[in-house]
Amino acid sequence: MLSPTKNSAHRLEPLLNPASIAIVGASNNAARIGGMPIAHLTKFGYQGKIYPINPKYEEVFGQRCYADIEALPEAPDLVVLAIAAPDVTAMLKRCHAKGARAVLVYAAGFAEEGGKGKQLQDELEAYVATTDMVVAGPNLMGFANLNSQVHTNFASVFNTAPMQSGSGSVSLLTQSGNVCAAVYAIARRLGVEFSHFINTGNEACVDFAQYLEYLAQDAGTEVCMGYIEELRDGERFIAAAEEFARRDKLLILYKAGETEKGSEAVRSHTSALAGDQAVYQAAFRQLNIIQSNDFVQMAQLAHLAGYRHKSAGKRVAIITISGALGAILADKFIGQGLDVPTLPQALQDTLRAGIPDYGMVSNPVDVTGNVVNDPGFVRTAMEALAQSDAIDAVVVYAPGYMLDRMADDLCAVSEKFAKLFVAIDTGAAQTRAQLRNGGVPVFEDIGVAVSSLSPFLLWQERRKHNRWLDVRHQPAPARTALPESLDEFRTKQLLVRHGMPAGAECVATTADEAAVAADAIGYPVVLKVLSADIAHKTEAGGVRLRLQNAGDVRKAFDEVLASARNYAPDARIEGALICKMESGVAELIVGATRDPVFGMTLTVGLGGVLTELYKDVSHRVLPVDEAMARDMLQELKAFPLLTGYRGRPLGDVDAACAAIAGFSRAVLALQEQADEVEVNPLLVKEQGQGVCMLDALVLPSLGQR
Amino acid sequence: MLSPTKNSAHRLEPLLNPASIAIVGASNNAARIGGMPIAHLTKFGYQGKIYPINPKYEEVFGQRCYADIEALPEAPDLVVLAIAAPDVTAMLKRCHAKGARAVLVYAAGFAEEGGKGKQLQDELEAYVATTDMVVAGPNLMGFANLNSQVHTNFASVFNTAPMQSGSGSVSLLTQSGNVCAAVYAIARRLGVEFSHFINTGNEACVDFAQYLEYLAQDAGTEVCMGYIEELRDGERFIAAAEEFARRDKLLILYKAGETEKGSEAVRSHTSALAGDQAVYQAAFRQLNIIQSNDFVQMAQLAHLAGYRHKSAGKRVAIITISGALGAILADKFIGQGLDVPTLPQALQDTLRAGIPDYGMVSNPVDVTGNVVNDPGFVRTAMEALAQSDAIDAVVVYAPGYMLDRMADDLCAVSEKFAKLFVAIDTGAAQTRAQLRNGGVPVFEDIGVAVSSLSPFLLWQERRKHNRWLDVRHQPAPARTALPESLDEFRTKQLLVRHGMPAGAECVATTADEAAVAADAIGYPVVLKVLSADIAHKTEAGGVRLRLQNAGDVRKAFDEVLASARNYAPDARIEGALICKMESGVAELIVGATRDPVFGMTLTVGLGGVLTELYKDVSHRVLPVDEAMARDMLQELKAFPLLTGYRGRPLGDVDAACAAIAGFSRAVLALQEQADEVEVNPLLVKEQGQGVCMLDALVLPSLGQR
Repeated sequence: MLSPTKNSAHRLEPLLNPASIAIVGASNNAARIGGMPIAHLTKFGYQGKIYPINPKYEEVFGQRCYADIEALPEAPDLVVLAIAAPDVTAMLKRCHAKGARAVLVYAAGFAEEGGKGKQLQDELEAYVATTDMVVAGPNLMGFANLNSQVHTNFASVFNTAPMQSGSGSVSLLTQSGNVCAAVYAIARRLGVEFSHFINTGNEACVDFAQYLEYLAQDAGTEVCMGYIEELRDGERFIAAAEEFARRDKLLILYKAGETEKGSEAVRSHTSALAGDQAVYQAAFRQLNIIQSNDFVQMAQLAHLAGYRHKSAGKRVAIITISGALGAILADKFIGQGLDVPTLPQALQDTLRAGIPDYGMVSNPVDVTGNVVNDPGFVRTAMEALAQSDAIDAVVVYAPGYMLDRMADDLCAVSEKFAKLFVAIDTGAAQTRAQLRNGGVPVFEDIGVAVSSLSPFLLWQERRKHNRWLDVRHQPAPARTALPESLDEFRTKQLLVRHGMPAGAECVATTADEAAVAADAIGYPVVLKVLSADIAHKTEAGGVRLRLQNAGDVRKAFDEVLASARNYAPDARIEGALICKMESGVAELIVGATRDPVFGMTLTVGLGGVLTELYKDVSHRVLPVDEAMARDMLQELKAFPLLTGYRGRPLGDVDAACAAIAGFSRAVLALQEQADEVEVNPLLVKEQGQGVCMLDALVLPSLGQR
Repeated sequence: MLSPTKNSAHRLEPLLNPASIAIVGASNNAARIGGMPIAHLTKFGYQGKIYPINPKYEEVFGQRCYADIEALPEAPDLVVLAIAAPDVTAMLKRCHAKGARAVLVYAAGFAEEGGKGKQLQDELEAYVATTDMVVAGPNLMGFANLNSQVHTNFASVFNTAPMQSGSGSVSLLTQSGNVCAAVYAIARRLGVEFSHFINTGNEACVDFAQYLEYLAQDAGTEVCMGYIEELRDGERFIAAAEEFARRDKLLILYKAGETEKGSEAVRSHTSALAGDQAVYQAAFRQLNIIQSNDFVQMAQLAHLAGYRHKSAGKRVAIITISGALGAILADKFIGQGLDVPTLPQALQDTLRAGIPDYGMVSNPVDVTGNVVNDPGFVRTAMEALAQSDAIDAVVVYAPGYMLDRMADDLCAVSEKFAKLFVAIDTGAAQTRAQLRNGGVPVFEDIGVAVSSLSPFLLWQERRKHNRWLDVRHQPAPARTALPESLDEFRTKQLLVRHGMPAGAECVATTADEAAVAADAIGYPVVLKVLSADIAHKTEAGGVRLRLQNAGDVRKAFDEVLASARNYAPDARIEGALICKMESGVAELIVGATRDPVFGMTLTVGLGGVLTELYKDVSHRVLPVDEAMARDMLQELKAFPLLTGYRGRPLGDVDAACAAIAGFSRAVLALQEQADEVEVNPLLVKEQGQGVCMLDALVLPSLGQR
């Protein structure tokens, strides 16, 4: 039967859920790309119309075969082209003339080959742009809709992996046909039941984000496992991921290219823009997308997603029959970012009533082997755990018959309470199916349990308070025009307007003005050459620190200007900037750069050479508010330097967060005018004393230079 | 049949491979601890004598039952005590009187419970020490020798996990009975075939290292998977691990207690010393032990060990039929520390001859789907890879039928050449068994392949040049006596004797002497108070830097001594140390501390607060030679600071390595006299200019203070 949940509003519907399919280049050989889709369609029971097209045959897989597309009795929803690259665009025109709504192009030999292939793809794109036809590919393995058995693919994995018996709600969306097939095979082996199987090929006309948008809206999709090499449309991707969040669906993405070698290998067979891995990671996190780099983990998460309506979060209670196994689980969960909190005393007392003295009740809880012989107590203990506000999820690890003896109670408690209970059985418990059906997922291995549960529970935690989706939809700040000269003073003033504080400072165009300014500001002061044309002021001899009196300031003014003129004879020098000499607890670097995929992206780190070596920075896609700025600072390993580490004074973290949020507003207000904005350093003073930019820089975008 | 490989020389032989077994507290109920071992022994076909002992029965599981141990017709090799803790020591005496060679004690209620239990264990230990009997436990689940079906355990896992059909060579040695059972169940599910199943309990008389020593010598053991909470005898452990290396066996260990919560949970049910996790990790690496924290990974490694006689190492060639999957594998292998080197041009040319232009030949190699239709070329390509000196192992990833078409060639090449070939099949290849039997391990998942192969290939790489086992057996340096006063000067002199350089420096007891010394050394100088009783010289006002002339030195001498006397009126002050004011490229901290398990352990890091926050240090168990010192420095993320990072001068890394090796000798020469030695900082000067201790400290061991 056709999918009962037509998504007819979406333009990809005829591509992914067609009521009729024509195959140009149809073949009777199931091993050929023109034969395999028809073999699949007939074998798996597609209920729509199938129109093989090939002048050589009367019939293909029992279906009447047509000589050409013009001969079809109706305009097909979808045409699959199993023909060579040079013939594709001409055939697209005939499809369009016939009234086809969508076309799927298998052929390789387009942009991925460069040269002539690139030209063919340009022609294809140019033609399709003049139509309203939806064209998938080229260079893909095709699709499957496993709920309606639409098979428009030549993926042999459907011959080898067992076909699911019921309907599925997990969709697969990849930028590689081979990855699509590999993940499908692995996930089927683990029992995952699928909705859509989609690989996107060269994405000439339909890109990853458009498919994702379709799946977000698709009533048959509850979970999407995706594989990304490079995104083409970050904005659309973000909107689709938001839609997943809004509809309470789970999105699990694998981003390729973790190492240089890996990126190189990816790039050699794609033609997409290279975005920064760290930015992808930040964006995924902001969108509460689970990032995975393991196919099995993805499949396990797809399973777990079935239990996502249970109440859960990051505070886990571990219940075992072995101190050692409890310790192992605690280690692993904590290592993955979960909490294993000590249980409240009242709850410990309840547990202690049934657990012998040599068992543990604090968490991990070691109920000892005796407890399974006391079913009344098991029920009491589980109910107490279910009702505790101090924990978000309960993991019960009891192998084999031990778990069997607790199964009835676990199911009963899981049914009665909203809280998520999970079981691990490394033995051979007979009650696994009973537990799963009773709302209790069961894992047969500790490692797999931890690597699936941890990101799932963190996902649950984050969706309780995902600020970014709100912050993103607040009104954007009004556009701020770039000043004509981007010298340090004007750059800082621009940022000050949005709430990024500067210290007392003043422009001087003569030595006398400098001295007057310094007197007004108060000593010691810093004097810096002021010129939009000199980026490296120190190198230019353009900086003097710790000036103590007016005489020193006058002398410094003359020296600095002379030195700067000597260093850069053509630079337009506007004078000098006189600043109060500030001191503080630590220095931050706060920068924004334009990512080719996700747009303006914020980076925060502590200044200095070691920070760079240790790559101790935090990234976010803009906008960032104060609370997010705090998260960024707390992610830094060097954060303790701001919070009194080893007797240091406390830094003004609140002021730093406010300043970072101001920086975010300033960058957004500049809109397309700047490609890079940086405050380096942002001095963090002692608590209560604020922060202050010591230097700032804007790099205008190409059109503005 | 009994194990054909009697290890009769080892004292644990009667415990682990007994020819006769008596069970005190025998029961007819297979669910009871006195019944289950007899049920197992009879069910699985143990060929030795079984002597149930219980006055209540005439017969147990078809075996004649004896009223008491005295009634046995012979002295049994092993007696299993299924009786309560308070009765154990008295029964041990009767076992000894009967002539038993070994006893296994199940009972809990000993040291793990503290109090009365601790006392019971002390009594047990005191008694056993007066005999030559081998006593295992107490508080354990017991053993199995799966090659001779010796079952002296009450582990129900042998009833639920399928019994292996053939003999096995993988042994399991854990400090927790439940972990032993859990790993056994998981590994059996993955097809691992076992030799010994051992859990050590409270280790009152026989500790982990003694069992490990047995397994190292045991001809039936090729691989050992172990689980450690805390080691009791580091020296014996090291010797046993060395024996594993010497006999070409693989040792895989899981060390519990990665996080504080995990350690706490472990400690609450063991009574062993807490060693430092980082030191365990360093020791494991020095001994080329594979550290794992995943039961499935352990089992996969045990499998892979069967292919360990193939030549292999860390330079991997990846051969796939998909650019995307090649990139994924490259990413993962590189992330795990392997190399995926670009192939030599000649090899690329050979591959290119059969691979279409759109395939890749550099590494990862994308042979494209076409190649499987050209078997002649597959053979040529595999032989070229097998013969290349530029790579150590070849990983072929081709799903399903693609792999099937290559299988004959892969097996043929694997047979002909020593190099390791590995296959990954995420499809449903029919040739998996053929490949495995043909010397080619097959994985069905990318993640599992990478997480098993990577540590295995690194193990292969390290055993080619494991320096430590050699360095360890070089003659120890002669004992150096501790000087009476451990002031800075004498401490440095002690270290200088072993090759740790100091700068020009001189002791002065008067201001005039100080000035004379400074003149001789050359300005600027540093003057520091010299006193073994003042550890924090700066706090005491006892340090003056950058002194430029004799007058300043005299003044500083008086001030520093006055200040120090004021700070610590009771301190014995010996004068001042005058040192050349040195400057360099970077400062190291080089320290040795006594680990309760592994003894004196070296730590190297860069000085400063960030190094501490980033935990950027490297550890080794002593001795450490220059080459190992270089490895330690290169492990530091901050190492580039010594090698010209961002235009900095090069540091004298050679001199630093020599100094660290000298430090190692000095610490060893002190033998038991010191618990802690530290040079902080060790100044690294520019290349060719050496290194120099700026301060040094020895903390005598308790007996020496």
